[in-house]
Amino acid sequence: MQSSLSKKERSPSAKRRDAQTERSADTINKLLEATIDLLYKYGYSKFRIADVIKNSKVSRGGRLHHFATKKDLVESAIEQLFVDEISQQTKAANTSSTDVIRHAAQAISDFHSSRLYRVIINMLISTGRLEQLTDGVRDISIRSRNQIDKGWINSVVQLGFTTQESEEILGLLWSVQRGIFIENLTGSNPCNDQSHELEFVISLLNEHLKVP
Amino acid sequence: MQSSLSKKERSPSAKRRDAQTERSADTINKLLEATIDLLYKYGYSKFRIADVIKNSKVSRGGRLHHFATKKDLVESAIEQLFVDEISQQTKAANTSSTDVIRHAAQAISDFHSSRLYRVIINMLISTGRLEQLTDGVRDISIRSRNQIDKGWINSVVQLGFTTQESEEILGLLWSVQRGIFIENLTGSNPCNDQSHELEFVISLLNEHLKVP
Repeated sequence: MQSSLSKKERSPSAKRRDAQTERSADTINKLLEATIDLLYKYGYSKFRIADVIKNSKVSRGGRLHHFATKKDLVESAIEQLFVDEISQQTKAANTSSTDVIRHAAQAISDFHSSRLYRVIINMLISTGRLEQLTDGVRDISIRSRNQIDKGWINSVVQLGFTTQESEEILGLLWSVQRGIFIENLTGSNPCNDQSHELEFVISLLNEHLKVP
Repeated sequence: MQSSLSKKERSPSAKRRDAQTERSADTINKLLEATIDLLYKYGYSKFRIADVIKNSKVSRGGRLHHFATKKDLVESAIEQLFVDEISQQTKAANTSSTDVIRHAAQAISDFHSSRLYRVIINMLISTGRLEQLTDGVRDISIRSRNQIDKGWINSVVQLGFTTQESEEILGLLWSVQRGIFIENLTGSNPCNDQSHELEFVISLLNEHLKVP
């Protein structure tokens, strides 16, 4: 039977297709990696496809075959990073620890120091003025955040919170961490120890759990 | 007695000095107003003293007399806005309402939609990359925030919280509001109604107050 053939026994044309698929995946990875690297370093407004081709050492044809436009390339790269982030956070959220809120807070904090979030922030301010993200990136962000939250909300519900409360808890953790991130950037928080602030939120939420 | 003379009865030279002081204050106000306007619109890296002089209709000599450098002018303008903000918030904080936490949250929320905060954000991202504020502006921000917090902390202590807890509460309200501000900018919060989030924090804090 065809399906029981090992790779070695496959026909020459099937082997050729395997090799092609591998080369394709490799090309795509190189393009996405170079894209992220440039967005991370220079932001969206200075992003040029010519630089991606130069840095990734992929031919212009190779690029055009996979991504028609700059927007395509950028959105695919960000989506790829989000896929990794979702899988990592979903794994972390799948915990039976009673200290779920601390784990969630930590994971959300880690996200804010990730390369992905830096790329998004760089896109947002790339022109030197505040600007909205492209619709595509905003959609990917919202979809991904919903996916990430789903895992954590499931685990928070196990603690005894309702779904609505669990959503509110996740929303609060995101806002607080985002605020701490911005205050770190501006250096304008009078209190240097922000882990203190996180502890306070965690204790408020754990207290809330005990309220009848 | 000299001091009991009304303005009309003062000597010609004193009248001249009065007029000079008034002209000076007027010149300073025009310069600071034009500075804020340009920072608000274009950010720090595109800020030019020549534009301030053009927009404020103040002579180059008038400017040089009051502010030696671009940095002087910018820091004085931001400090002036903070003086107004501190006075406004100190007045708001001086309340006997039992709903102090809601008032504080609202005042901090209002600050984030103010022209002052927009100017600071524009300075922060003026080059199209994240950069620190100048040391002077960071110092003014921290000093002002401490002043603003002092008023609110006094009123929160009246509710029965300790000073340390009151500081933590203020820190939390600032971070949450800053996070909500950033999420509004990116449009990346899946939940559109952020007043909901604020209500949740307020209810957590009021609940915390009741814990023995």
